[in-house]
Amino acid sequence: MINITHIKQAQERIRGMVHRTPLIGSKTFSHICKNKIFLKPENFQKTGAFKIRGALNVVLSLEPPKGKRGIITASSGNHGQAVALAGAISGYPATVVMPKNASAAKVDAVQGYGAEIIFHGTSSMERIDRAEEVCREKGLTFIHPFNDPLVMAGQGTIGLEILEDMPQVEQVLVPIGGGGLISGIAVAIKETRPDIKIIGVEPEQSNSMYLSIRSGQRRELQNIVSIADGLKTTIPGTNTFPLVRKYVHDILLVSEEEIRAAMMLLLERCKLLVEPSGAVTVAALLAHKVAPMGRKTVAVLSGGNIALRDLASFISENP
Amino acid sequence: MINITHIKQAQERIRGMVHRTPLIGSKTFSHICKNKIFLKPENFQKTGAFKIRGALNVVLSLEPPKGKRGIITASSGNHGQAVALAGAISGYPATVVMPKNASAAKVDAVQGYGAEIIFHGTSSMERIDRAEEVCREKGLTFIHPFNDPLVMAGQGTIGLEILEDMPQVEQVLVPIGGGGLISGIAVAIKETRPDIKIIGVEPEQSNSMYLSIRSGQRRELQNIVSIADGLKTTIPGTNTFPLVRKYVHDILLVSEEEIRAAMMLLLERCKLLVEPSGAVTVAALLAHKVAPMGRKTVAVLSGGNIALRDLASFISENP
Repeated sequence: MINITHIKQAQERIRGMVHRTPLIGSKTFSHICKNKIFLKPENFQKTGAFKIRGALNVVLSLEPPKGKRGIITASSGNHGQAVALAGAISGYPATVVMPKNASAAKVDAVQGYGAEIIFHGTSSMERIDRAEEVCREKGLTFIHPFNDPLVMAGQGTIGLEILEDMPQVEQVLVPIGGGGLISGIAVAIKETRPDIKIIGVEPEQSNSMYLSIRSGQRRELQNIVSIADGLKTTIPGTNTFPLVRKYVHDILLVSEEEIRAAMMLLLERCKLLVEPSGAVTVAALLAHKVAPMGRKTVAVLSGGNIALRDLASFISENP
Repeated sequence: MINITHIKQAQERIRGMVHRTPLIGSKTFSHICKNKIFLKPENFQKTGAFKIRGALNVVLSLEPPKGKRGIITASSGNHGQAVALAGAISGYPATVVMPKNASAAKVDAVQGYGAEIIFHGTSSMERIDRAEEVCREKGLTFIHPFNDPLVMAGQGTIGLEILEDMPQVEQVLVPIGGGGLISGIAVAIKETRPDIKIIGVEPEQSNSMYLSIRSGQRRELQNIVSIADGLKTTIPGTNTFPLVRKYVHDILLVSEEEIRAAMMLLLERCKLLVEPSGAVTVAALLAHKVAPMGRKTVAVLSGGNIALRDLASFISENP
C-alpha cells in the first residue's frame, strides 16, 4: 500500500514537468454553499486533466532498458492522452489501445503526442485484453489508469500542493472513478494532517465505490450511463479500495442534473471549462450536500476535456 | 492628459478591492504564433471583466457628499455591472440606464449588485441622453465608460501588474473599443518602459480607432455589426485618441471568423471562457498578424461575459 513517502518521491520525480495548478477562491460558490470555497483547477493541467501526474510518475520510475521497450495503456480518455504525453516527455515509445469508434478529436490528441494507436473493439474489456496481449508479446509496460501504486502516488501530488498552498484547509472534495485520484490525495493529506477531511464525490448513476464502501467489499456495476464519462468505472481498484476505506470521511452522490448545473455555473461565473467528471465536486457543493459550516474547502476540478459540440448540447438542454 | 502618477494613485486606491489577475503561459499559442505568449485573464476579474478597475477608481475619488448623491451610467454591458458593483462597494447609490430590451441576465446582474435600473429607449444615444438628464436633475456623478481620465487610469493598473509580474515582457496586445483600456495600459507601460511595444486590436467591422489613427483625426462609424459587442464604439474618446496616437505602436484588425476561432481555441485548449471582445488579441496572434519573432508577448483577455446560449450558437456555427 502506498504511503506519504511514495507521494513525496513522486513530487520530486515529476517536479517542473507538470503544471503546479493554483487554488482559486470563489466568492459565488462560498456564498451559495456557506463554506469558504477554493477550486484546484486541474483542467489547466497539461493534457487538460490530472492524469499526467500519475502517468509521468510511472514512466520516470522505469529502468531505461525497460522503458525503451515501450509503454502501453487502453484508454480513449484522459489517461490515454497522459500516457501518450508521458511517452513523448521520456522518449519512450507509447501505445494507446482505443475503440474503433473513438472520436477524431481524441485520436488527434493522442497522435499529436506521437503515440501509436491500436484500434480495437468497442468495449473497455476488449481494449484491456488487447493491450495486455500486446504487452506480453512485446515486453511493454502496462500503465493502469488507477490501480497502479505509482499512478496513485503521482495523483497524490495534488494533495501535497493543496497543503503547501493552504495549510488552513479543513476539507477536500475529490471526484471518484476508480479511486486513484482520491487515494493519492487522501494518503498525502491524512498522513500529514489527519484533522483534514477527505470527501469523495461520485455520480449517483456510477456509484461503485459508494456501494463497495457501504457493503465492505468491492462491488461491480453493469451498464453505467452517466455524462461523467471519466468516472464510469465498473469496480474500484484492489489497491484504491482499502485506502478509500481507511482515509475517506464520506462519499457524496450527485445526479446528472446536478453535474450539468455545476458545469454551467463554472462556465458562467468562474469562466472555467470543466468536464462533467471534473464538476462533480462543485455539484455536491451547489446541491448543499456539504454541511454549511463556513469551512475552508478545496474542490478538485479534475479535468476540462469535453468536445465543444457536447458542451453546446448541454447548454441547449439546460433549463 | 493622464500620466503614470495617476495610474499609480489608482493602484493604491483600488488595491485589495479588485482581483490581481495572474499571467498564464500558453505553450499551444506560443507554438502556433512563434512568440512566447502569456494571457492576462481579466475574465477572472470581479464582474467578469476589467471594467471594475476604472469604475472603482472614479467612485473612490469622489468626495463623500458628492458620492452620496449617487453615481450613474448608461450601459447594458460590462461597464454597467462595474458601476453597479462600485456603488455597492462604496455604499453610494448607483443607477444604470439600460435599454428596454436588455436581456434578463444583464438586468439580474446589475440588480444583484443593488443598483437602480432605468429602462429607456433601445439605442445607446437615447440612453446616454437620459442618463445625462437624470444626472443634472439629481446632481449625480456620470461615469463615462472610457473617456473619463479616472476610468482610464483605473484600467491602466493592468499595465502596472504586467510590469511587476513579467519585467521581461516585450509587447502587449490590448483590445480597443473606445480606447480607455489601451490608453491606461499604454501610459502605465510606456512611461515606465518605453522599449515595450503596445499593440491594439480592433474588429475589422468596428475599426473606428484604426481609421482615426490613419487619418489623424477622430472618425465616426455608423451601424456597426460585430460579435464583439463590447468593442462596438462608434468614435474614439477625446481623451483616449491622443494617448493611442502617442503610445500605440500598431493597430491590428481581426475578422469575425478569426474572433470566433480564437474563442473556441481558448475554450478547447486553455479551458477559459472569453467573450468575443476579450478574444480579439488571441485572434490576432492565431491569425499570424504579429511577427513570429519569439517575443515575450502578453495578450489581455478583457472579459468573459457571454450568455451560454450565445456560446452554444457560436459552437454550432463553428466549422
